[in-house]
Amino acid sequence: MTAKWETIEERDGENFRIFSTVWLKRRHPEDGREGNFVVLRSPDWVNIIPVTDEGKIVMIEQYRHGADDLTLEIPGGLIDPGEDSRMAGQRECTEETGYESTSEAEKMAEIQPNPAFLDNICYTYIWRGCKKTSVQKLDQHEDISVKEYTVDEIKKMIKSGKINHSLVLNAFFYYFTNENNL
Amino acid sequence: MTAKWETIEERDGENFRIFSTVWLKRRHPEDGREGNFVVLRSPDWVNIIPVTDEGKIVMIEQYRHGADDLTLEIPGGLIDPGEDSRMAGQRECTEETGYESTSEAEKMAEIQPNPAFLDNICYTYIWRGCKKTSVQKLDQHEDISVKEYTVDEIKKMIKSGKINHSLVLNAFFYYFTNENNL
Repeated sequence: MTAKWETIEERDGENFRIFSTVWLKRRHPEDGREGNFVVLRSPDWVNIIPVTDEGKIVMIEQYRHGADDLTLEIPGGLIDPGEDSRMAGQRECTEETGYESTSEAEKMAEIQPNPAFLDNICYTYIWRGCKKTSVQKLDQHEDISVKEYTVDEIKKMIKSGKINHSLVLNAFFYYFTNENNL
Repeated sequence: MTAKWETIEERDGENFRIFSTVWLKRRHPEDGREGNFVVLRSPDWVNIIPVTDEGKIVMIEQYRHGADDLTLEIPGGLIDPGEDSRMAGQRECTEETGYESTSEAEKMAEIQPNPAFLDNICYTYIWRGCKKTSVQKLDQHEDISVKEYTVDEIKKMIKSGKINHSLVLNAFFYYFTNENNL
């Protein structure tokens, strides 16, 4: 029978700054099976599709240490403690691209990046009416190129695999679905 | 300037069985900035949409330790060393659901689950003509309910947030796009 397992013991694993780890000893509530499972405790994430008045989408290219390669993505990042997810999305957009809008970003969805071993949520937003208003404010290790693309160009790059980051694809899925424009 | 960083040193972090961790000391090739970055080394993953001759989709519900909750997903899992991704997808489907097809599963996409800190790929397949032919063959800690849904039911559950696993949404994005049926 599918059921939530009970947590019997909890032991900290290594802390990796962008997330901490914990070993959980858990027991099935009915048949008594036990096991040890690792969970990554991570702040929630946010990403955001910035759209200009011309209908273009602002994307960023950056080096990613997991893939050891440059990837094409939308702006996003970690939500600060106590920060509202919409504010965080707008902040990340402005910091990473120098684009912002006078309108409020609209929430499209709340996604589980990986419920198997991550405990967090990724909020995904769309921000219409974006314009370049400032220079980037990058973190110490960030190094980001910014470029506008048409929706047709985005679709071609999804098809070719040039855009292939799971959470970026999620954002476009909701965007295209909401616009009835797949 | 956006560029690939060079790896200067590599040091193992804690090993979590489902993935190992490594600390990489890396340097920007042009401006010489250095930093330490964690990467999770993981086997590649696969997931698969099993479709019946009636056009229904076979989904699974299971407890997930990261989310500490039951989640509604499609079959999938780790690709074994040396195993072909299509065979792995078909194997996971049959083990987790008892469904299989006499046709070959068709690859829809190769996705990066998280290029920021994961080094692996998730392959996503569709397997048409699936029928229930056997009982589940579950791993020690698996506990999976199986149910068929119509495409309309799936779309409603995506809209309501009942289906919200990033990689499952990716699979449906490609499926609906390929079928021109969003």
